[in-house]
Amino acid sequence: MAASRPSLKSFLETAHVLADASGKAILPHFRKAVTIENKAPSGKPFDPVTTADKAAERAIRKGLAARHPDHGIFGEEYGREHSASPYTWVIDPIDGTKAFITGTPLWGTLIGLQRDDRAILGLMDQPFTGERIWSDGNGTTWRLPGGKAKRIKTRTCPRLEDAIIGTTNPDLLAPGFERDTFDAMKSKARMARFGGDCYAYCLLAAGHIDIIAECGLKPYDIVALIPIIEAAGGRVTAWDGGPAEAGGRILAAGDPHLHEKLLAFIAKR
Amino acid sequence: MAASRPSLKSFLETAHVLADASGKAILPHFRKAVTIENKAPSGKPFDPVTTADKAAERAIRKGLAARHPDHGIFGEEYGREHSASPYTWVIDPIDGTKAFITGTPLWGTLIGLQRDDRAILGLMDQPFTGERIWSDGNGTTWRLPGGKAKRIKTRTCPRLEDAIIGTTNPDLLAPGFERDTFDAMKSKARMARFGGDCYAYCLLAAGHIDIIAECGLKPYDIVALIPIIEAAGGRVTAWDGGPAEAGGRILAAGDPHLHEKLLAFIAKR
Repeated sequence: MAASRPSLKSFLETAHVLADASGKAILPHFRKAVTIENKAPSGKPFDPVTTADKAAERAIRKGLAARHPDHGIFGEEYGREHSASPYTWVIDPIDGTKAFITGTPLWGTLIGLQRDDRAILGLMDQPFTGERIWSDGNGTTWRLPGGKAKRIKTRTCPRLEDAIIGTTNPDLLAPGFERDTFDAMKSKARMARFGGDCYAYCLLAAGHIDIIAECGLKPYDIVALIPIIEAAGGRVTAWDGGPAEAGGRILAAGDPHLHEKLLAFIAKR
Repeated sequence: MAASRPSLKSFLETAHVLADASGKAILPHFRKAVTIENKAPSGKPFDPVTTADKAAERAIRKGLAARHPDHGIFGEEYGREHSASPYTWVIDPIDGTKAFITGTPLWGTLIGLQRDDRAILGLMDQPFTGERIWSDGNGTTWRLPGGKAKRIKTRTCPRLEDAIIGTTNPDLLAPGFERDTFDAMKSKARMARFGGDCYAYCLLAAGHIDIIAECGLKPYDIVALIPIIEAAGGRVTAWDGGPAEAGGRILAAGDPHLHEKLLAFIAKR
């Protein structure tokens, strides 16, 4: 008898178990005098990593070894563990390390699952506020501080002129094409917001932000967020319309019609 | 017999009562499709005000009318009520309205008390996460999600090169002197963070951020934060070293030595 195909439901249970473990590993370090290393090469912008990032990724890897020892893993701090399985967990233990080291509760633990090249499940955990957001194949759920959970949806916003646009840090856009393109969208939009990292993508999934445009993302910065946004009704791709799973220049929009218009806008520049 | 002089303790009780009332007025509107008006004159940047701002300020004014009917009030939404009393409550029902309308939990209710021209008491409330920060004359307290409270202190950081610098939105600095001065500080600092409004000043008071430099603040954006920062060990003044209570260009630093150096740095430009 062939083994039954593993279900998304059991993978989602795993993601919750991993997030419980990572939250426990991170919280004792939050708003403490943390040991910060600079990962950036000399002369490059400050790129902090903390003991909390590492402890959380180790906790997640330990959880995966217990539940899915045959799956692949790709984590920000400890790299790739290849596998013959089509499943790979793509992990950022603390997305928004700069938010983390300034005590701002907009960082999150990103736990994504890919089958081959496609993200199929995503979870973002913010253990300080008690918030957790995840996709389950049929939709996206946001658990609020205090534990109440609700379904979320992106909002309708077909016109750039009515949109709220966000990016984590405009200094991360390279001068020239990247920054000029963002500024051109920003100047037409109703309002711009900076900061937010993964938390901002979740706010887009919940219909509070309409567009996020960023550059230089790594796969572990975005894979978990793709199913969260798409199951809530939004779209997320690379700036050239290709799949977002590889990272790079990312464009997310809550309204698929706006997303299509923005891809055309970018393509003409 | 002369009436006894009112105590800071009773005023702090009032501030907590007001924050409880404003939180109840605001939360039903948070992350809902809010009615947003644009307060800005035609051609000026978008300046949103929501039904939540107005409901919260009305709740605070009602609380003050019951407890201190003789005191003055200066609130963002409903202006000044003068009084013969030396005490004036300076209120921003939602500091960070743009954070509020994008669902970001970094807005806060600011409740400050001035005696004559000097801020003597401050409270910042973030009802979504359950956080509240206040000064009590002897120190500053941060109540965490879940209710546990702890004393906070700014951190030692005498050198700009070691400092984390923040500003809510670099676009709010006027091109020329303001933006050039901020950029000059930012280029020497270890790291910059954008976003945060009142929440960022509280993080400075708690020793997670070293410098905040902003321009164009109104008194109700800063009065409540002055005692919160100073009772925690920091300093906050105008860029010319004058009192911060009037708003305008504001410089806050967790380390008074760094603050003094930065005032000299600004004065030389």
